[in-house]
Amino acid sequence: MNTKSINLGVIGAGRIGKIHAENLATRIHGARLAGVADVNLAAAQEVAGQFHVPLATADYRQLLAAPDIDAVAICTATATHAEIIQAAAAQGKHIFCEKPIDLDLQRIQLALDAVSQAGVKFQVGFNRRFDPSFAKARDLVATGKIGAPHLMRITSRDPAPPPLAYVKVSGGIFLDMTIHDFDMVRFLSGSEAVEVFAIGASLVDPEIGRAGDVDTCVVTLRLANGTLATIDNSRRAVYGYDQRVEVFGAAGMVAVANRTPDNHVLLNAESVSSAKPEYFFLERYAEAYVAELQQFIDCIHNGSIPSVGGKDGLMAVVLGLAAKRSLQENRPVKVSEIY
Amino acid sequence: MNTKSINLGVIGAGRIGKIHAENLATRIHGARLAGVADVNLAAAQEVAGQFHVPLATADYRQLLAAPDIDAVAICTATATHAEIIQAAAAQGKHIFCEKPIDLDLQRIQLALDAVSQAGVKFQVGFNRRFDPSFAKARDLVATGKIGAPHLMRITSRDPAPPPLAYVKVSGGIFLDMTIHDFDMVRFLSGSEAVEVFAIGASLVDPEIGRAGDVDTCVVTLRLANGTLATIDNSRRAVYGYDQRVEVFGAAGMVAVANRTPDNHVLLNAESVSSAKPEYFFLERYAEAYVAELQQFIDCIHNGSIPSVGGKDGLMAVVLGLAAKRSLQENRPVKVSEIY
Amino acid sequence: MNTKSINLGVIGAGRIGKIHAENLATRIHGARLAGVADVNLAAAQEVAGQFHVPLATADYRQLLAAPDIDAVAICTATATHAEIIQAAAAQGKHIFCEKPIDLDLQRIQLALDAVSQAGVKFQVGFNRRFDPSFAKARDLVATGKIGAPHLMRITSRDPAPPPLAYVKVSGGIFLDMTIHDFDMVRFLSGSEAVEVFAIGASLVDPEIGRAGDVDTCVVTLRLANGTLATIDNSRRAVYGYDQRVEVFGAAGMVAVANRTPDNHVLLNAESVSSAKPEYFFLERYAEAYVAELQQFIDCIHNGSIPSVGGKDGLMAVVLGLAAKRSLQENRPVKVSEIY
Amino acid sequence: MNTKSINLGVIGAGRIGKIHAENLATRIHGARLAGVADVNLAAAQEVAGQFHVPLATADYRQLLAAPDIDAVAICTATATHAEIIQAAAAQGKHIFCEKPIDLDLQRIQLALDAVSQAGVKFQVGFNRRFDPSFAKARDLVATGKIGAPHLMRITSRDPAPPPLAYVKVSGGIFLDMTIHDFDMVRFLSGSEAVEVFAIGASLVDPEIGRAGDVDTCVVTLRLANGTLATIDNSRRAVYGYDQRVEVFGAAGMVAVANRTPDNHVLLNAESVSSAKPEYFFLERYAEAYVAELQQFIDCIHNGSIPSVGGKDGLMAVVLGLAAKRSLQENRPVKVSEIY
Repeated sequence: MNTKSINLGVIGAGRIGKIHAENLATRIHGARLAGVADVNLAAAQEVAGQFHVPLATADYRQLLAAPDIDAVAICTATATHAEIIQAAAAQGKHIFCEKPIDLDLQRIQLALDAVSQAGVKFQVGFNRRFDPSFAKARDLVATGKIGAPHLMRITSRDPAPPPLAYVKVSGGIFLDMTIHDFDMVRFLSGSEAVEVFAIGASLVDPEIGRAGDVDTCVVTLRLANGTLATIDNSRRAVYGYDQRVEVFGAAGMVAVANRTPDNHVLLNAESVSSAKPEYFFLERYAEAYVAELQQFIDCIHNGSIPSVGGKDGLMAVVLGLAAKRSLQENRPVKVSEIY
Repeated sequence: MNTKSINLGVIGAGRIGKIHAENLATRIHGARLAGVADVNLAAAQEVAGQFHVPLATADYRQLLAAPDIDAVAICTATATHAEIIQAAAAQGKHIFCEKPIDLDLQRIQLALDAVSQAGVKFQVGFNRRFDPSFAKARDLVATGKIGAPHLMRITSRDPAPPPLAYVKVSGGIFLDMTIHDFDMVRFLSGSEAVEVFAIGASLVDPEIGRAGDVDTCVVTLRLANGTLATIDNSRRAVYGYDQRVEVFGAAGMVAVANRTPDNHVLLNAESVSSAKPEYFFLERYAEAYVAELQQFIDCIHNGSIPSVGGKDGLMAVVLGLAAKRSLQENRPVKVSEIY
Repeated sequence: MNTKSINLGVIGAGRIGKIHAENLATRIHGARLAGVADVNLAAAQEVAGQFHVPLATADYRQLLAAPDIDAVAICTATATHAEIIQAAAAQGKHIFCEKPIDLDLQRIQLALDAVSQAGVKFQVGFNRRFDPSFAKARDLVATGKIGAPHLMRITSRDPAPPPLAYVKVSGGIFLDMTIHDFDMVRFLSGSEAVEVFAIGASLVDPEIGRAGDVDTCVVTLRLANGTLATIDNSRRAVYGYDQRVEVFGAAGMVAVANRTPDNHVLLNAESVSSAKPEYFFLERYAEAYVAELQQFIDCIHNGSIPSVGGKDGLMAVVLGLAAKRSLQENRPVKVSEIY
Repeated sequence: MNTKSINLGVIGAGRIGKIHAENLATRIHGARLAGVADVNLAAAQEVAGQFHVPLATADYRQLLAAPDIDAVAICTATATHAEIIQAAAAQGKHIFCEKPIDLDLQRIQLALDAVSQAGVKFQVGFNRRFDPSFAKARDLVATGKIGAPHLMRITSRDPAPPPLAYVKVSGGIFLDMTIHDFDMVRFLSGSEAVEVFAIGASLVDPEIGRAGDVDTCVVTLRLANGTLATIDNSRRAVYGYDQRVEVFGAAGMVAVANRTPDNHVLLNAESVSSAKPEYFFLERYAEAYVAELQQFIDCIHNGSIPSVGGKDGLMAVVLGLAAKRSLQENRPVKVSEIY
């Protein structure tokens, strides 16, 4: 690529915003970090300072107004995504947006319409699609190596629950946590869900139950291509971040095991032991965060379409809402009831 | 054990009857094969001849009438189990019965009542409880090594579907195949299911669908102790018999992987490859078949109660019926609706 | 096979003799246990009684004289093997002999000459060749799946050293323990060793050193086909019996991992742990003991030649003696110096 | 660390020089790439340009003369290392030097003397010590988790041989390739080798043999602490870079398996297959290259001593020379014969 570097601004200098900022500054080819916005100006300034970026602002609009900024990565609280997307689209900036786009389908639709009208690139931060193991699984399924998919199982368990305050505004486990797994179901199968059934309980922390949410759940889905899929989630796996998938089909199965920080095995008189899975998403998905942003930048350079776009962002929320209703009403919910 | 050897008669000289006969003749301590009955006299005679047993008969009643026979293993077609149990109990014979006891709850109850009145030992052939890996998993759960169970996953896939003629009289996948997994849920959790939800499809063979059954299914269960359990089944895993479980709890997880015929790994320019799972139940559960029968014999000697008895046989059928209704009505079914 | 059953007498009712006796009585097709001899008559009687065999004797000559005995399994102390082989051959009995044939090459040669003149079947108890994993490895090498072999590694470690009294008469680690690994080198490579270099130390128990032996050693071998092979041994692996091999070639590698009693994995806040290797040879090679004896019986029935015969028994001792001299003289020893 | 950034110049802009340059520019904290030297000026300019570094030169002396350069990484051909070390030490620059320091012990000693007199930091590029798995293994050994070490095995196989022209000037396999493994023996055991025995052959490519070198070898070492160690090398493992170690001791064993690019497993009717090991050192040791340079920079900041210094660089060459002589003379060579 001999084209000029893309100037990207990061909006939201929290945990995930910092990851993207650092990756832009050090790992992404063809782009550079050109500005940081955060309602907390000090946070914006800290990240900007760390990577020698002149522009730090408390007002993301200032970033959008900068003519040399080509694109933005939206890493703010979910409730602000739709508004920022619309503002960025209006300025003709390409948009990378963290998941979920919004918790409300109408607001998502408005945002996507704005993107569509502006003709800018739009990518949603479903980082797991860029994990080398999951990408390999998708590739094996897509190239027919396991035949027609029949069963799919996704395990997704966090090492520890988020703060209760966060749980309360998260939209619930299905929109906050399972949403990644809904996307994986669609990604791995290449098919859409038709019906969703969810069960759940607060087994990790009764406070989560009192806040109206569950911390442990199982979701089953019937897909248009006939596949039966299962997702299980827990907010607390004491052994670390548990991220596995399995797709079983007419001609075989592909399974993805967890990644460990090292490959030692210790044998002694008591047992055979080895390393626990990577602790959490920062470790497990370090490569995936780089790869997703690289794809976004490459799409801007090449004029191609990001592999994970608006419809993907939308459908994952649809499935989250379907699961939510299923849990509330204790019945299978058709996706067509939601969207 | 210096007590006399238990004389055991095998009723039904089909595939599983032959396994028990051979194990009795060669592997079980404290017992001997004393007679074989099969409606097909030639089959009974063949097995009897192979193990030098004088008594071979087409009429199981003859076996029950033999005063030196202490116990029987019922390995006939399911429809005959209840009647034979009652006849054997009436003769004071201890009873080992293959699963399922019957497809009808009332008939099961009558059979169990007969057992109870006769005061004979009764064990159901849920062989998987005696698999070293599953027994280890149960032991780890029961001794608190993973804390309170939150999630459970059971994968159980056959290498190839049975003949269509068998499928039609099998009672359907839930009573023929999933029944083992229902028992594993109860065994591993030490808890009872409260509600069952099932989805299924005929993806392996449309003929199975035309016969009114499914060949691929997912069942989710809510247990009394709060655990959320999932079972997935397929009638055809091209890579062999897939028998895995996973119990996840507040303090950890135990998982059981498949067993392979050998432990080689081959690395070449194309890939890293290793042995497929054991082909089917005869291979995978060879040790378990010995262990379950040994326990039955030991219980007779010691006067202790078999660890897997009438209630276990009954409840697995109850869950099978609940799953069947759930699939038919596409709704979660409370176990209390069934029994 | 519709031919008559082979009558086999077991000579030596110690640990390995008991295994063969039990396998003959319960697992081997086409043969039956027909007599047991042991200098300790009570031991012979105990085994004979356990398997309902009429003939128990303190004098193996009585067993050899019995006209209905077709074959013998020699499981006595090594020092007596050569003499019993000659006596058995003189009586026209087929011979299965535990390793090593003898510690002295001339006595081995005399025994093999007697076998040759009598025209009886002769098999040496190199059970590891019949382990499913090692047999698979051999098959992959022999069929060219890894190309020409370049490197070979054998790990062979016992869980605990034998009694010191045994160590003193064992002929030393190379003839007692490494001898199995020398045979594996020949088996896996299909080639002969040209030169041997050995280093060793008594790191497990200084008493073993005082008895003139080592308990930890590494032997490297140059083979005629160019392969460079390494064996490492320890008399004490606290985690159990460690039996692995690895053959690396121009087109790939095959490796054999240890076998475990079960396939569970336990993940908790501390670690990921799983079962230790099988404890010792009785567990690890249970199937191999059956398979080797079955081959011996089949060869008698079919008139074929056992796959592991006199030359194999001889060459393993030759390599043991070469290693012994190498250790004593701290130099590579050509096999041609020994034989 | 609030101290000023260390300015580091890279001397030698070949494959390994580029890695260090990129890591300095993007991953190392507390340092920055301040200059690049290469006899091929274009190569120096290319790397300098890529990371926006003003100073590119064909003469490393110019780099050493720059007053703002604090330290250098020497990544040139081996024959130039000693001279550059002395020149850098004379200028008071801290020195990171790729292995081997030199092929001649006297020249190494002169270089180390110069370092010592100048009082500058000196680190040798034994990157494998910084691999998370090997570092974990060392930690487990050092903290007594496996008890006193008895046996050690190192497997180190490249995916493909270097060009023949390189082989001819490399000093031979022991000084070019095994040198890393010699360092691993010392690192993992914390002990020094006393005696070395090597065998080898040219099995991969007869041209390598004609060039006077071997491409396949096995080295055994006796260590001062009693451990018996084995190294095996091949210039071509068709399945990728094979980098494993195993340390066996009185209380257990630690083993390190290969790292794979992803964690998928594919099961089909033919086999169970998974990803091959990482292709070569750039992939396998990506993290290790960052960690070693970070340690070097941290040591400059903190005034601490790099964990792998002059003596380590020297001793690995000593062992390489001992192995070379052993191969030539086909006898065990005492380390004291060499140094």
